[in-house]
Amino acid sequence: MIVGVPCENYPGERRVALVPAIIPNLTKAGLEVVIEAGAGTYAGYLDDEYSAKGGKILPERAEVFRAADIVVQVLCYGSNDRTGQADLPHFRPNQTLVGFLRPFGARETLHEIAACGVTTFSVELMPRTQSMDALSSMATLAGYKAAVLAADTLPRIFPMLTTAAGTITPGRVLIIGVGVAGLQAIATARRLGAVVSAYDVRPAAKEQVLSLGARFVELPIEAKDAQDARGYATAQGEEFYRKQRELLGDAVAANDIVITAAVIPGKKSPVLVTKEMVARMVPGSVIVDLAAERGGNCELTRGGETIVEHGVTIIGQFNLASTVPYHASQMYARNLTAFLLNLVKDGNLQFNEADEIHRETLLTRNGEIVNARVREYLGLPELAAESKGA
Amino acid sequence: MIVGVPCENYPGERRVALVPAIIPNLTKAGLEVVIEAGAGTYAGYLDDEYSAKGGKILPERAEVFRAADIVVQVLCYGSNDRTGQADLPHFRPNQTLVGFLRPFGARETLHEIAACGVTTFSVELMPRTQSMDALSSMATLAGYKAAVLAADTLPRIFPMLTTAAGTITPGRVLIIGVGVAGLQAIATARRLGAVVSAYDVRPAAKEQVLSLGARFVELPIEAKDAQDARGYATAQGEEFYRKQRELLGDAVAANDIVITAAVIPGKKSPVLVTKEMVARMVPGSVIVDLAAERGGNCELTRGGETIVEHGVTIIGQFNLASTVPYHASQMYARNLTAFLLNLVKDGNLQFNEADEIHRETLLTRNGEIVNARVREYLGLPELAAESKGA
Repeated sequence: MIVGVPCENYPGERRVALVPAIIPNLTKAGLEVVIEAGAGTYAGYLDDEYSAKGGKILPERAEVFRAADIVVQVLCYGSNDRTGQADLPHFRPNQTLVGFLRPFGARETLHEIAACGVTTFSVELMPRTQSMDALSSMATLAGYKAAVLAADTLPRIFPMLTTAAGTITPGRVLIIGVGVAGLQAIATARRLGAVVSAYDVRPAAKEQVLSLGARFVELPIEAKDAQDARGYATAQGEEFYRKQRELLGDAVAANDIVITAAVIPGKKSPVLVTKEMVARMVPGSVIVDLAAERGGNCELTRGGETIVEHGVTIIGQFNLASTVPYHASQMYARNLTAFLLNLVKDGNLQFNEADEIHRETLLTRNGEIVNARVREYLGLPELAAESKGA
Repeated sequence: MIVGVPCENYPGERRVALVPAIIPNLTKAGLEVVIEAGAGTYAGYLDDEYSAKGGKILPERAEVFRAADIVVQVLCYGSNDRTGQADLPHFRPNQTLVGFLRPFGARETLHEIAACGVTTFSVELMPRTQSMDALSSMATLAGYKAAVLAADTLPRIFPMLTTAAGTITPGRVLIIGVGVAGLQAIATARRLGAVVSAYDVRPAAKEQVLSLGARFVELPIEAKDAQDARGYATAQGEEFYRKQRELLGDAVAANDIVITAAVIPGKKSPVLVTKEMVARMVPGSVIVDLAAERGGNCELTRGGETIVEHGVTIIGQFNLASTVPYHASQMYARNLTAFLLNLVKDGNLQFNEADEIHRETLLTRNGEIVNARVREYLGLPELAAESKGA
């Protein structure tokens, strides 16, 4: 079987789905790898390096799609701006596509992809804490980068310094939403010498926050079933969020930097930082909203943009992992490879309905959206058992 | 006596010469402080805060100059682009100006300032390791910011991470020139988890480098009188620099980030990183050239700009301290205040030729450039003793 790596085509996307060092792992399992010329350039991986590791460089994009039994991408077609739509005619039934398919995104694009007949596996649907969990890999990098970006934007420095010109007090950073990204943001801000506190609706987060040397912000309100079986925060009622906002206001105002990372899979992000809270922050403060892609945790966030309101810089940049494309591609390639090696047996793709990983990640097959969670999200009826396993 | 703080007028300059918290220290010594409206805004200090601490806000720039016996600035008139020239008519004999006057900069502007009759003290000429040493304060912040900026630009992350998707190797950072800025760059890159090495022509730097947990790069060449009485590196012959470049090439190529901070007061910065060395770096690497203002330590640096050559991003931004204006202004205000309190006795400016601090920093008086070091730099004859002390 042949695995194909086209160039990414989203504006500003610098990652690549596979890196040269990983190719021998695939070759050993009987898979060949073809790469569109220049696919790794922006991530720092040159065509020659792919060739040296046994990959085959193809000059034309269409050739990659023609040759590949399995196409691997970072960002697949699936946003509202139609980027990648031109690739749809390249797909054929019995071909497989693996990548970020944004299964809880635009309904229309999901149907368009399904209609190509291509079998798709969405990495966002991967069960967690696996060597294949690309969402966690990218969140780790986004959390790191959020803290670095904040440090680069703040008109103050992070560490406490004692100099001949007196003492400089350390920066104060608040992290809201302590998932993988939030934890890495805490660790990075701490590394840089800031005083860090963090808040999460899940009580389980407290221990992790404390273990990183940060303070846990306790609000005297209780969330119902704060955590789902996958370890993600669950959505709460509007009354809960209203009370939470009221109590969070003081914590926000007391910090120079607020990094929000409260994302609920398949849902619009809850607004945790209101415009009133932003107005109470010291001018020059910085908010990095890692939930910007799903509407943002800050009321004033503009997706994909950096704006200044009430003297506060609000960074709503999407896809921070793509700004460290070298390591993001390396981690993603490892995640993908672990997944492919799980999926491919004896040189053939062997889908196994009984395997949680296969079952949870399968998104479309035979012209249909088959994933149970996604069908529920789209309001589609449950599929009959024989259709799912077909 | 009245101390006046005008708005800074260099494009992009966000610092301010005095901050509200320092005003009471001046008031206690019998000095009043007047501030041009909005002078502290970009640094994060509001007019109301100045008023609350006893400062007087004046709406017009000209009023500040009219009222002030001592004008304090960050960047005084003195660059080639004529910014600040419009202030020259405001100055009068028996008025004093303290700030960054770039005494080893453009000859013409120095003569123009002298011709105003204003008495000027240049903070760059301050003897080192004093609470008044603004050059060290700003270098500390520039070194911190260089590392943060590099981290924000690099397509990799700095720390080593061990994740479910395997291990990420740490970033490799080389610091060339280990003065105050270089040391802070080492400390900051280390905080972020990078593997750091450093090189300096002064053997005395080795111990400092090691104490920060970095490796010292030893080149088998010897510098003559590597350090002057003030602790700054001295200029070496062209043959020395040629050999140094030859040996540094491997160290440069082995790192993802090179931060250069080899500045020699009053001289053009030595070229330490040639274009051939840049070409040998891995694409995606980053150079931050803290010597950009004096020609740069990297041959390809373009002053004030960020460029990409051979896939390497070369940052030649001037004045990095101004990007953390809150703390830069705080430190600078403390430096200035310590200096003013040293200069003012019983509510009057008391110049004392015998005081090293007074003597070394005095730049112009009675229409003349009087500083011995600067006269030497400009090729002017030594002043007669009676003229100096007049």
